[in-house]
Amino acid sequence: MKKTDMINLKKSADYIRYLSLASIQRANSGHPGLPLGCAELGILLYRYAMRYNPGDSRWINRDRFILSAGHGSMLIYSLLHTIGYNISLEDLGKFRQMGSKTAGHPEYDLHDGIETTTGPLGQGFANAVGIAIEGKMEAQRFNKKNNTLFDYTVYTLMGDGCNMEGISYEAGSMAGHLGLDNLIAIYDSNHISIDGHTDITFTEDVGRRYEALGWHVEYAEIADIQDTANKLEALRALKGKPKLLIVKTIIGQGVNKKKDTSGIHGSPAGYEEIAYFVQHSTIRDLFEAQFGKEAVADTSQLASLLEKQIKSEEPLLPLPAVTQFMREAVDLNKQHYADWEKTFRTYQQDFQAEYNQLSAYRDFAVSAELEAALLNYNEAKPTATRNISGKVLNIAAAHIPQIVGGCADLVGSTKAEVSGSKYIDRNDFSGRNIAFGVREHAMGAVGNGLALNRMFIPFTSTFFTFFDYMKPAIRLAALMKLNHMFIFSHDSIYVGEDGPTHQPIEHLNALRMIPDMIVFRPGSDLETAFAMLYFLKKMNGPAALITTRQNLVPAVFQLPEGRKDNRSDLYNQFSRGGYVFYETNKSTPPDIILSGSGSELGLALETATLIEERDNKNVRVVSLPSLELLSTQDREYRDGLFIPGVPQVLIEAASHRAVDMFYNRDVTVIDIQSFGLSAPGETVGDHFGFTAEKVYQRIKN
Amino acid sequence: MKKTDMINLKKSADYIRYLSLASIQRANSGHPGLPLGCAELGILLYRYAMRYNPGDSRWINRDRFILSAGHGSMLIYSLLHTIGYNISLEDLGKFRQMGSKTAGHPEYDLHDGIETTTGPLGQGFANAVGIAIEGKMEAQRFNKKNNTLFDYTVYTLMGDGCNMEGISYEAGSMAGHLGLDNLIAIYDSNHISIDGHTDITFTEDVGRRYEALGWHVEYAEIADIQDTANKLEALRALKGKPKLLIVKTIIGQGVNKKKDTSGIHGSPAGYEEIAYFVQHSTIRDLFEAQFGKEAVADTSQLASLLEKQIKSEEPLLPLPAVTQFMREAVDLNKQHYADWEKTFRTYQQDFQAEYNQLSAYRDFAVSAELEAALLNYNEAKPTATRNISGKVLNIAAAHIPQIVGGCADLVGSTKAEVSGSKYIDRNDFSGRNIAFGVREHAMGAVGNGLALNRMFIPFTSTFFTFFDYMKPAIRLAALMKLNHMFIFSHDSIYVGEDGPTHQPIEHLNALRMIPDMIVFRPGSDLETAFAMLYFLKKMNGPAALITTRQNLVPAVFQLPEGRKDNRSDLYNQFSRGGYVFYETNKSTPPDIILSGSGSELGLALETATLIEERDNKNVRVVSLPSLELLSTQDREYRDGLFIPGVPQVLIEAASHRAVDMFYNRDVTVIDIQSFGLSAPGETVGDHFGFTAEKVYQRIKN
Repeated sequence: MKKTDMINLKKSADYIRYLSLASIQRANSGHPGLPLGCAELGILLYRYAMRYNPGDSRWINRDRFILSAGHGSMLIYSLLHTIGYNISLEDLGKFRQMGSKTAGHPEYDLHDGIETTTGPLGQGFANAVGIAIEGKMEAQRFNKKNNTLFDYTVYTLMGDGCNMEGISYEAGSMAGHLGLDNLIAIYDSNHISIDGHTDITFTEDVGRRYEALGWHVEYAEIADIQDTANKLEALRALKGKPKLLIVKTIIGQGVNKKKDTSGIHGSPAGYEEIAYFVQHSTIRDLFEAQFGKEAVADTSQLASLLEKQIKSEEPLLPLPAVTQFMREAVDLNKQHYADWEKTFRTYQQDFQAEYNQLSAYRDFAVSAELEAALLNYNEAKPTATRNISGKVLNIAAAHIPQIVGGCADLVGSTKAEVSGSKYIDRNDFSGRNIAFGVREHAMGAVGNGLALNRMFIPFTSTFFTFFDYMKPAIRLAALMKLNHMFIFSHDSIYVGEDGPTHQPIEHLNALRMIPDMIVFRPGSDLETAFAMLYFLKKMNGPAALITTRQNLVPAVFQLPEGRKDNRSDLYNQFSRGGYVFYETNKSTPPDIILSGSGSELGLALETATLIEERDNKNVRVVSLPSLELLSTQDREYRDGLFIPGVPQVLIEAASHRAVDMFYNRDVTVIDIQSFGLSAPGETVGDHFGFTAEKVYQRIKN
Repeated sequence: MKKTDMINLKKSADYIRYLSLASIQRANSGHPGLPLGCAELGILLYRYAMRYNPGDSRWINRDRFILSAGHGSMLIYSLLHTIGYNISLEDLGKFRQMGSKTAGHPEYDLHDGIETTTGPLGQGFANAVGIAIEGKMEAQRFNKKNNTLFDYTVYTLMGDGCNMEGISYEAGSMAGHLGLDNLIAIYDSNHISIDGHTDITFTEDVGRRYEALGWHVEYAEIADIQDTANKLEALRALKGKPKLLIVKTIIGQGVNKKKDTSGIHGSPAGYEEIAYFVQHSTIRDLFEAQFGKEAVADTSQLASLLEKQIKSEEPLLPLPAVTQFMREAVDLNKQHYADWEKTFRTYQQDFQAEYNQLSAYRDFAVSAELEAALLNYNEAKPTATRNISGKVLNIAAAHIPQIVGGCADLVGSTKAEVSGSKYIDRNDFSGRNIAFGVREHAMGAVGNGLALNRMFIPFTSTFFTFFDYMKPAIRLAALMKLNHMFIFSHDSIYVGEDGPTHQPIEHLNALRMIPDMIVFRPGSDLETAFAMLYFLKKMNGPAALITTRQNLVPAVFQLPEGRKDNRSDLYNQFSRGGYVFYETNKSTPPDIILSGSGSELGLALETATLIEERDNKNVRVVSLPSLELLSTQDREYRDGLFIPGVPQVLIEAASHRAVDMFYNRDVTVIDIQSFGLSAPGETVGDHFGFTAEKVYQRIKN
């Protein structure tokens, strides 16, 4: 690095420190420790290492930067500002304020250079593993000799917290197994976590751990910038393994008393500390020009001037020399981008089929053939919806090449696999299946990583009870509205012999509570196909498909004559989340309304038959494939379904604990509020009262 | 090992194989792979390594065995049977049947030798870490020179699945940090997981990984039993580090075609495979005596005889030689137990104070002083309930020495710390605080481990939003009814600036859905103290205490005159989960009923004032500290609270998504069904309509 570069780099780092300190101080909230400690690292990445184009922030071959330690958000905002993304000084000054671009933790915004939402520790790192897999898949699908469309590198910055989380181990193990050499993780090793020095709880040998997982590990100290830069560069070229650069940093570098303490991790530094920083920084002249030399030399005067400026509504101080220096990277990258565009144009001419496929990946639509195939789905005999979900996944996958995914070591049970396609391995990423191993949490977050760029449509799968192991990732899928299909089989007590640890009880309503998540618990083969269709047509967030272990009667044997064939009509009804599935006699109002989701739809129908036979009553059965969709229908529709005053029975082999106390008195809830037990599924169902006879008796009582 | 011992050991191992194969075949469900592969290992543990007494299964100094790979449950049932625990051949024959002692996965039963419920992978291993911490704590608290009451060793058997789960990494890192040399993990390394050979996804160097975490690692092959036994013995004596013995095994050892394949992991072997096993086993004579030599020599005849026997109601075949050999261990252990009893009697005489304290640990009761202190709790000014929970935890801890616990690197925020007590470290376990690090999942399961023996009462703590990271362990706490206090602070959108990733929305009702979990969201200082009191008095399962980041008005300023002082009466009302907190005029029925939990109790009270002032209405305010407790009250009580026909407003800054559609039409729900946002807490509250003025306007509309 040239001497002038080094000077500029240090100035830029100090400017980032200023922006971070001031924004956090103004918000009176935030985490200065990381931006102060990693300012130089950030510059090494954005000024030297990374290839990107702020003018085309969704460039498909851009290098990615994932701030896994999301609390250090001011680092990325400051970098994106200086580099020329659409984040202004005014935006920085509104850090953590309502509606600003500079939220407390980075929030997914591909336009503004935020590749993913981070904050919950370890998630970003696992997302990065997913993006690295995506890069490998894209390269193998589309790259041609002399036409390299995809060769981007994924950088991620992680802290002690990320490394302590189990998800980082799981994702790291996967990355090592797959030899993801397009992934470079940088470990901001500052030996300080919130509660103090990491000595109090985190004394493992992190480098050795990653080596055990199959990573290449290097060590650097940020104090030696040139060496750190050299290592970053060398790592990019190194092939065969994912790479970890462990960089010794000092949390809160630049301030005085709080430097190297947990006090600077998550609280504003205070004006005195900022004044100290200014006085000892390489950008002291910026403040001298603003406040005068004498004022800057006087700590308490400087502190109060800074306080006044920071507390004002004014933008933070600009420093054109820094933005100019930083944006030289953009100029350097412009050549790289232009070369790539040229490659892409040649590609378009020379490989038209592949070019069209790539375009189809980016402009996704459900074809009429696919829609028809799913609408007209039929099973001939009783089949478990987990088998059907496997089949409809494959119908979809046959039409949509960007569907990829896998299972947490339960594919024989959940059936979530693209038939006739390979599993990816370190030498071959052409396949569409991923063996995630018994790593549900990483699976969820790696799946999110695959969804982020909106090229691939990932599915991930396990037993519903192990939803718990991946919940933090599912929440983020919903928060980012990622098109990620979660397939959970073995949906209730009918799991049977495996017992209470394997029988989900609380999970269904827990999943429903997550904003922006659509949960489908289909009651038949047809509803399973419809759920897949709905997910693909919506493409505006995740969905969960909850399937049975045991066989269910196909819809054609459940639906009354005359209703089986108009599939578009049925699909429209299904799309409302709840609809009249059966009625004894449509011409008179029902005497009783039974409703259920999943396997309890069939149970409601059986019970209806008993009521009809024994009591000669008019029974309506409402299917409830998605309560969230139904709850967004207007009151009129819902009142048409559940006619006020008519007794209702809601049957669901899942917990409605506590909140059922608020349910309408018309509603009898037949649910499960205790843990399951180990016995054959039918025995367990009978034990909990989930037989037509027992439901009938409960209704009679 | 003597030659006769070796012969007996092999016979015993084959008998365990028979019991496992036959029981699983009879149930037509189960996992034979592990019991077949680990039979010899199990015998090395129970016959040679471990110290225990089936006649005193809760002996406080017993060695523990935790089958972390819980699907291999037939291994532990077979071992417990042969060793003389209260599990009969009849029980084994009822494997996975309703009400039997031999559930699909081991279910916590200290009487019958099941130390914890396992099945969800990795949990048992983390429980074992918790028990090892308990052992260290007990030793340092009670052992005296020449009076060693506690020196037990914790053994745990884990498989590939356990090791792939992030929780095993987290707990392993903690164990290494703490140097838990009373912990021996045995890794059943068979290179087969459900979806096939581990090569497809799990290729890390597990031994090196544990070494990086600070463990001592040894390798053995089960084919060399003597060497494995020697290493197990040597490891027990080795000090300073937790120890991992990686044992190369063969899944399904003993059967023919399915041996060493994933086909034997989780499905019955089939009669032909069992016949093959019998013919090639060391216990062939048992079957020859039963069926005749010729029949045993004829594979298909043997298979059909086995089928007939296994499908019958008859008990499995006894083999007294094996039970006799295995129970020699009990005789050997008897001497050890007698020595310990002698030590204990001496201890009782020589260290009366410590003896009494140990007794108090085991016979827990809430003292009148503690009850009075919590009942009469008062804050003088607005305080966050997280601060109050810290204070009431300390009031409890001052009276109850067995309260120990800690936080996932957020103690400054959640305040869950025993003041004036040390944090444990590898050299000193006298403290009551545990720095769990950013390892929420391990924290939950290690906390469960601490609760299992019902000596200690653990608390664990993090932000409520990170409940997600530890949910699988919380579920198991509820399933086992462990006295484990979960303290979650930062309960809603009022978290503010940290934004949506840090603002729990769906978590409150997700937690409520878990059977046997009591969730408290106290609305004041007093309700926080009451929640702690309720948990301590109940001592029959876990509770969660959900606290605020922001200040709440103390109860003495909220409660009407005349209601503040009768604390027993208030506590009784609180204990019902919901109660009338305030009423404009008790002599006439209310015009409107407002209800809320946590910070929304205060909001309801403020709104009530507006309604009174502006509309001159009679308002009732119901406090809802625990919906689960309220939902178990009889209909009469609940109707007295929420008088049918009177308009109700339920205010809760949490998601009631989808299920609110079933709520009574009398109820207006003011909740949150979208993700939060980053801005100061009050701004966010205002944005979502959580101000008295906005609630008032919504009610008016």
